[in-house]
Amino acid sequence: MRKVFYISDGTAITAEILGHAVLSQFDIDFEQITIPFVETIAKATEVAQQINDGFYDSKPPLVFHSIVDEGIREVIDNCNGISYDFLNTFVAPLEQQLGAKAAPKAHRTHGIANEAYSARIDAINYSLDNDDGISLKHLDNAEIILVGVSRCGKTPSSLYLAMQFGIATANYPFICEDMENLKLPKELKNNKHKIFGLTIDPFRLHEIRTQRRADSKYASLRQCRAEVKEVEMLYRRERIPFIDTTKHSVEEITAKILDISGLKRQMF
Amino acid sequence: MRKVFYISDGTAITAEILGHAVLSQFDIDFEQITIPFVETIAKATEVAQQINDGFYDSKPPLVFHSIVDEGIREVIDNCNGISYDFLNTFVAPLEQQLGAKAAPKAHRTHGIANEAYSARIDAINYSLDNDDGISLKHLDNAEIILVGVSRCGKTPSSLYLAMQFGIATANYPFICEDMENLKLPKELKNNKHKIFGLTIDPFRLHEIRTQRRADSKYASLRQCRAEVKEVEMLYRRERIPFIDTTKHSVEEITAKILDISGLKRQMF
Repeated sequence: MRKVFYISDGTAITAEILGHAVLSQFDIDFEQITIPFVETIAKATEVAQQINDGFYDSKPPLVFHSIVDEGIREVIDNCNGISYDFLNTFVAPLEQQLGAKAAPKAHRTHGIANEAYSARIDAINYSLDNDDGISLKHLDNAEIILVGVSRCGKTPSSLYLAMQFGIATANYPFICEDMENLKLPKELKNNKHKIFGLTIDPFRLHEIRTQRRADSKYASLRQCRAEVKEVEMLYRRERIPFIDTTKHSVEEITAKILDISGLKRQMF
Repeated sequence: MRKVFYISDGTAITAEILGHAVLSQFDIDFEQITIPFVETIAKATEVAQQINDGFYDSKPPLVFHSIVDEGIREVIDNCNGISYDFLNTFVAPLEQQLGAKAAPKAHRTHGIANEAYSARIDAINYSLDNDDGISLKHLDNAEIILVGVSRCGKTPSSLYLAMQFGIATANYPFICEDMENLKLPKELKNNKHKIFGLTIDPFRLHEIRTQRRADSKYASLRQCRAEVKEVEMLYRRERIPFIDTTKHSVEEITAKILDISGLKRQMF
């Protein structure tokens, strides 16, 4: 398989994400190698050698990089791989457009030197402390409250909302015992404008629950169908916005939730 | 402030991350607006209008986009903003290099159509279930075990390792009562090769703990100093690799941990 290197003098997360986005437009498998923290010329020279040794089928490796330091960038750009520079491709035209020189500083992208960072950590802690209905006392501090049946995707979505977007997210599960006479608990009613529902295909739910507790009533298709039906009826009755998580990643689910609810994403 | 739009027919997370990385190279504040799921020509036309209305000080808005659909991309590229195309800037040269046409498919970047996705959800669930020493029974299933004093950054790091990199991460706190005769519990000893230590500047720790429990012994500078000292001595005695989290974001901490421990990042 052809080799792809993601390289940066920082975390290499940006290079990885954009490179992955670009390559996913091709139906080709690659061997992907990430090398972060290339912060010295010595290390860069070593990496350039590794790239030069990485030919496959006489084809050069692809090199996606996002390197702030000019000297290090030069070493990587001069290797025998095919280089794609994610940062500078856009920085030069932007300098012209903005009428300002870039003031390159490594680690600025994912550093903690911005005020939003501690709000983000607070959001993560809030979401953990208010996961799975553990506590209903602090819902006033939630920016959004996800609800849904057990295993429909509430917890990963809550954590991603906090981690990626800085949104303090609580979540509350409707459990088997609630189904007989399903309604919103008082604490949720008081924060009804913040509630967002998740739903899921009952058959997929049955599969997921079976992995956890095979052959239980909890995992039975019959039970899954009944719970999803009750909960969707509640959403409609109470006019709670909701989305189906079945075929979507946590990125897609959370981006959709923010889009519908109009909450502003934070950037870090 | 000059306006910046991040636009995509998917989640817009890629456009946001790369745009943010590029703009963070400039010492300028922008008004940032993210518009995901621009999936129809009608919606694109509406967004183009919003961009056309967004001039500031007779300067056009900047538009960073990552749009897979050609028709939608054309509408956005034809607006009066200054367009930067994160996907196609690299797709065309890559087509030539790879000798293959791109097979554009929206939602491929952050979809669940890849096998790694359920491993990622498993890693998130594992990390939650094994947070903060809740359980020491499943350490055999951990890929890495973070240790450190209370509030040094274990939990956000564990969750990020799981969420972003798909690494099943346990974490274990050394608490006040352990300090008298600090050693690794038996369960940790059996998995010693997986242990990675976090440390933190005692003064910063004092600040963080004071926010949680002001004027407690727990938050006192004296206690913070003593705990950090004991724990760092343990790391050295047991030859546990460790890093200082004080000045680093969760992206930097986790990328560094993976770099040092040699664990392979998964991509989603």
